[in-house]
Amino acid sequence: MRVIILGNNSALPAFGRHPSAQAVTVYGEVLLLDCGEGTQLQMQRYGVKWKNVNHIYISHMHGDHYFGLPGLINSMSLLGRTAPLSIYGPAPLKIIIDTVMSSADSRLSYPLHFHALPQGAAIITTTPTYTVQCFPVEHSITCHGFLITTRTRGRRILPDECARYDIPSAHFESLKQGNDYTAPDGTTVKNEWVTTDGPIPRRYAYCADTVHTESFLPYIKGADAMYHEATYLSADTEKATARFHSTAAQAAMLARKANVRKLILGHFSSRYKDLEPFRQEAEAVFPGTIISVEGIAYDL
Amino acid sequence: MRVIILGNNSALPAFGRHPSAQAVTVYGEVLLLDCGEGTQLQMQRYGVKWKNVNHIYISHMHGDHYFGLPGLINSMSLLGRTAPLSIYGPAPLKIIIDTVMSSADSRLSYPLHFHALPQGAAIITTTPTYTVQCFPVEHSITCHGFLITTRTRGRRILPDECARYDIPSAHFESLKQGNDYTAPDGTTVKNEWVTTDGPIPRRYAYCADTVHTESFLPYIKGADAMYHEATYLSADTEKATARFHSTAAQAAMLARKANVRKLILGHFSSRYKDLEPFRQEAEAVFPGTIISVEGIAYDL
Repeated sequence: MRVIILGNNSALPAFGRHPSAQAVTVYGEVLLLDCGEGTQLQMQRYGVKWKNVNHIYISHMHGDHYFGLPGLINSMSLLGRTAPLSIYGPAPLKIIIDTVMSSADSRLSYPLHFHALPQGAAIITTTPTYTVQCFPVEHSITCHGFLITTRTRGRRILPDECARYDIPSAHFESLKQGNDYTAPDGTTVKNEWVTTDGPIPRRYAYCADTVHTESFLPYIKGADAMYHEATYLSADTEKATARFHSTAAQAAMLARKANVRKLILGHFSSRYKDLEPFRQEAEAVFPGTIISVEGIAYDL
Repeated sequence: MRVIILGNNSALPAFGRHPSAQAVTVYGEVLLLDCGEGTQLQMQRYGVKWKNVNHIYISHMHGDHYFGLPGLINSMSLLGRTAPLSIYGPAPLKIIIDTVMSSADSRLSYPLHFHALPQGAAIITTTPTYTVQCFPVEHSITCHGFLITTRTRGRRILPDECARYDIPSAHFESLKQGNDYTAPDGTTVKNEWVTTDGPIPRRYAYCADTVHTESFLPYIKGADAMYHEATYLSADTEKATARFHSTAAQAAMLARKANVRKLILGHFSSRYKDLEPFRQEAEAVFPGTIISVEGIAYDL
């Protein structure tokens, strides 16, 4: 799993930082989390291919999290996309997309499936390689975080061992699922002789705009990495709380409490040019905190 | 009058070129014509101050002409704008703006006045220093061009001559309007003794997406400058016509027919990296054609 931050600033673009968007690559497929204005340009800049994007997740209806969506949808159509695209977001987003399309008297070149996010937590995407769960965070309007979990592809086949026991490849799927193999002569080949443990599932939590709270702790606990907003520094804690945002220290406290392995901070207010204080503040609570940089790929 | 092109590409951003937007400065006020995605960033880049923008004109509902508008509106509010902002555009744009605002549960810090464009031609803005007229062009959906005309501020006062005749400044407004001055002793001071001709009105025509046609010739005739779309080269004339766009040669023919003084081309298709063929093609018909470059200021 790999995360490329396409936008790590809050609402006002500043200091070369852009509004929220990130591309999470899972087994070659790209999941787009939020899509602020200019995301399609950021994707071009950092080599994120729209052809690999089949699912887009929008956390909430503040514009810095979705104003780039209509442009991206349109561009995919102009570029001749045919594969279906699924968008998960708050219900009003559908009104906007529909009005954009109908007023332009245009049809997309591909099927667009819109899925309104439920009120609470739910698994909203299940594919053979990953699941995505949405969970409520606490912001001034309804807002969701997203948890991406890779699915194990089962146990890992040991080809040499399988050859030694003369197991036909038609049985590999059964072996991956942990079953033993019964040879034509009736002897049993134990699963653990010809397989090893498969890859460990990875979990990435994206915590969009939220005030500091432990209410969504159950969803992020033990994640391999968590992206959390850090709009402000501790000196502005009151402002953060009043505006339903978090400080770097608060994000770090939550990361420590949740026992995540990595913490990536973003959604910085445009009042801060220098981000080093964010690192220092978070580092004191959660060592190794990553201050996100647009275009950098973080491997989990 | 000064024009800064903020985006000169057609729908797909490419080769560092952006979707349609331009800033026209008239006596210090900035009129924004179209507002493609990323316009607020282009404004930052090229020093176009949002504080000077009071009127925004959207030609039609194809996204590359307005997807940057919600972000700009929001940013102005976050930056604490208080002055009213007027937006002129197709009626469905209001639905989008309203949905954006209501779903974000947010209020702008300033009054926003939306004016739906009429079907045909009409003068839609009149200020002491300029007027803006919209006129229909011919595209796949309803689309308007805009004609900006500076208003003369009347005749120009000659301060030394006024002093010589001892004319109080309270009478200058009357002199600007061409009236003579009657001194307290009853003698008449002829207007032409103390004033000269004021500045000549300037006319700038913005012809957004349109197929080649002479239907809007009356509105652009004799303009000091005309911006016209040139999505394609002549080799793709059929494609241009089918898609209700123009070629560089067609734009140049219209400019010649309209007897405009300057022709500025833009809205180039992303299929063309090199724009020199546009210059050559237009130049053969209309010498001195300007191939717009983003960020360059063109003085009229």
